[in-house]
Amino acid sequence: TGTFDFNNDSHRRYNPLTDSWVLVSPHRTQRPWQGQQEKTSAGGLPEYDSACYLCPGNTRATGPVNPKYKSTFVFVNDYAAVKVDQPPYEQSGSGDDDLKARLLHAQGTRGTCFVICFSPKHNVTLPLMSVPEIENVLETWTALYDKLKTETTFRYLQIFENKGAVMGCSNPHPHCQAWCIETLPSEPAKEFTSLRSYNAKHGTCLLCDYAKVEQQDPIRIVVQNESFLALVPFWAVWPFETLILAKSHTASLVDFSPKQKTDLADLIHKLTIRYDNLFQTSFPYSMGLHQAPINPVEDETQLSHFHMHFYPPLLRGATVRKFLVGFEMLGEPQRDLTAEQAADRIRAVEEVHYLLK
Amino acid sequence: TGTFDFNNDSHRRYNPLTDSWVLVSPHRTQRPWQGQQEKTSAGGLPEYDSACYLCPGNTRATGPVNPKYKSTFVFVNDYAAVKVDQPPYEQSGSGDDDLKARLLHAQGTRGTCFVICFSPKHNVTLPLMSVPEIENVLETWTALYDKLKTETTFRYLQIFENKGAVMGCSNPHPHCQAWCIETLPSEPAKEFTSLRSYNAKHGTCLLCDYAKVEQQDPIRIVVQNESFLALVPFWAVWPFETLILAKSHTASLVDFSPKQKTDLADLIHKLTIRYDNLFQTSFPYSMGLHQAPINPVEDETQLSHFHMHFYPPLLRGATVRKFLVGFEMLGEPQRDLTAEQAADRIRAVEEVHYLLK
Ligand SMILES: O=P(O)(O)O[C@H]1O[C@H](CO)[C@@H](O)[C@H](O)[C@H]1O
Ligand SMILES: O=P(O)(O)O[C@H]1O[C@H](CO)[C@@H](O)[C@H](O)[C@H]1O
Repeated sequence: TGTFDFNNDSHRRYNPLTDSWVLVSPHRTQRPWQGQQEKTSAGGLPEYDSACYLCPGNTRATGPVNPKYKSTFVFVNDYAAVKVDQPPYEQSGSGDDDLKARLLHAQGTRGTCFVICFSPKHNVTLPLMSVPEIENVLETWTALYDKLKTETTFRYLQIFENKGAVMGCSNPHPHCQAWCIETLPSEPAKEFTSLRSYNAKHGTCLLCDYAKVEQQDPIRIVVQNESFLALVPFWAVWPFETLILAKSHTASLVDFSPKQKTDLADLIHKLTIRYDNLFQTSFPYSMGLHQAPINPVEDETQLSHFHMHFYPPLLRGATVRKFLVGFEMLGEPQRDLTAEQAADRIRAVEEVHYLLK
Repeated sequence: TGTFDFNNDSHRRYNPLTDSWVLVSPHRTQRPWQGQQEKTSAGGLPEYDSACYLCPGNTRATGPVNPKYKSTFVFVNDYAAVKVDQPPYEQSGSGDDDLKARLLHAQGTRGTCFVICFSPKHNVTLPLMSVPEIENVLETWTALYDKLKTETTFRYLQIFENKGAVMGCSNPHPHCQAWCIETLPSEPAKEFTSLRSYNAKHGTCLLCDYAKVEQQDPIRIVVQNESFLALVPFWAVWPFETLILAKSHTASLVDFSPKQKTDLADLIHKLTIRYDNLFQTSFPYSMGLHQAPINPVEDETQLSHFHMHFYPPLLRGATVRKFLVGFEMLGEPQRDLTAEQAADRIRAVEEVHYLLK
């Protein structure tokens, strides 16, 4: 029956960072698609939109007026998922003898949610901004991280961007969010568990070792510079998922040198341009930063290795996405091309943004 | 500052079945929505569609002709995610000394994927079928489970339905899928881990105990009959997520009495009618069965407690869905109303399907 072929035979791959699996079905891209077509982003947006609640000088739904900001702009989300001002919650119930207390377990969660506008211009996105402008975004993130670390007792700051209507983004004005909460969320918590047990077993950092493995045989690396790698992880779930990985073991934004920050801005720029070029569309994704908690406990700071995840949904062009539904929800995540095939595709596109040629 | 209010204050709830958390932000439903609008299902479909590859007598994309079936119809998926015929895969590498073998871990996965048509009629759905017709679907599932258990060495059979274009379903003809694979998928694997450790600790079944708790104070129960409960689990992630739970500890479809099967068909019917009535639309969801593996190991059969998960995406009407993106992907799942509020809403709608009044 021949030898096993990763490009043709179904297999599962293990994600050591979150201790999870993905089912890979590389032969499945031949499947015809008769399902939902996504809208592509309209394009041709104005530089200023009087109806946009993020544009400079405009009034937001709940009343406040945005300043006439010139670069980035941070404010507290008018419809935040968590709030500072609520009573503390202590679970009642008599512990383990009481079935109800045993099975219905909850925690109160206070915090603050921020919106961070990347630019006063309504019609740009990270790949259409300059590297210095992206550096400015990184400085804004760093300052917010630093401020919350110093001034609050909240545990964790999750910075993330939802880009594109298909990713639940309701306003194309370039922005991200930052949710600061008193509990460590599940995803970073899983990563710390894995980093900790890997370190206990091997005496090294899982992500330092992983960066080494990928550099030895760069088939999954998409683009890199002196300080960072962008690669399709071996265990990617989303079709063109990538991971930006610091080459050196660095815990968080506040620990980067100016050179590293310029390099990170450069790599975000290069990666997102390639994404847009892949299907000649404003490439939708959710992305976010994983780094040390703002109020770390135990060994979390030493374990932290800064990285960014990009989760883009498109599979076969600007209008056909991958659905993680049915089997993925009930069984396990499944993908239709290998990580290596995806990396090849992202590497093959041009370096210059298709709109700027 | 008053007392903590579950209907107004943010909190996390713990899912003991998968050992995970969800962030609940009950005050957040006031948020205006300016983002993506979903298409509602067209409606007015014909009973037979000559262009449908699932209708009786039609030819499929890869050549085979469907029989003129009268009730249900099972065939092997023409674009299966796993296949029987591939070489076995044994990971090379020298184990733990070799970084590559340590971090890039894979398994070959053989199996078969089936499509199961619920009805020859192109224009029905479970809530529009009769209870005896749904019983017939259950008999088809049971026979397939039994056959694969007897004739194959594969580990697990995942039966699931993707309903609606928004859930990646590419054909409205009523059907589900059943993926049979040689590895135990992640979600049931997590559940077995939790069921096992709960049983070791308390000597009882987690889901039997949970059914008891919910019946004591039925604020999350949506509908029930003698054999089954349908409820919004305390730890629900999707806005109107439900769990159908066997009242008795039963491992799988093949273990149900005729009475239990009729009751299950009745409860699926009642629940899906309520779903459709909630927003007067063909309610999209992914749903699936969790039961004993077809080739169980160790204590898996004794641990199994048959249940079905329904994961519907709609949040505020037929066209506005919940997006599990950004924070949900990078941090942890988040919801905008409590499980109790959702259960109230599903309970409040009429029992008769809005199209049949
Ligand atoms: O097999 P289908 O219905 O074409 O495909 C659908 O269900 C599968 C199983 O949940 C998913 O992997 C696909 O992304 C989805 O589009
Ligand atoms: O806050 P937004 O942008 O209105 O909302 C978006 O991002 C949030 C955080 O990922 C999600 O919870 C929402 O479902 C999504 O629509």
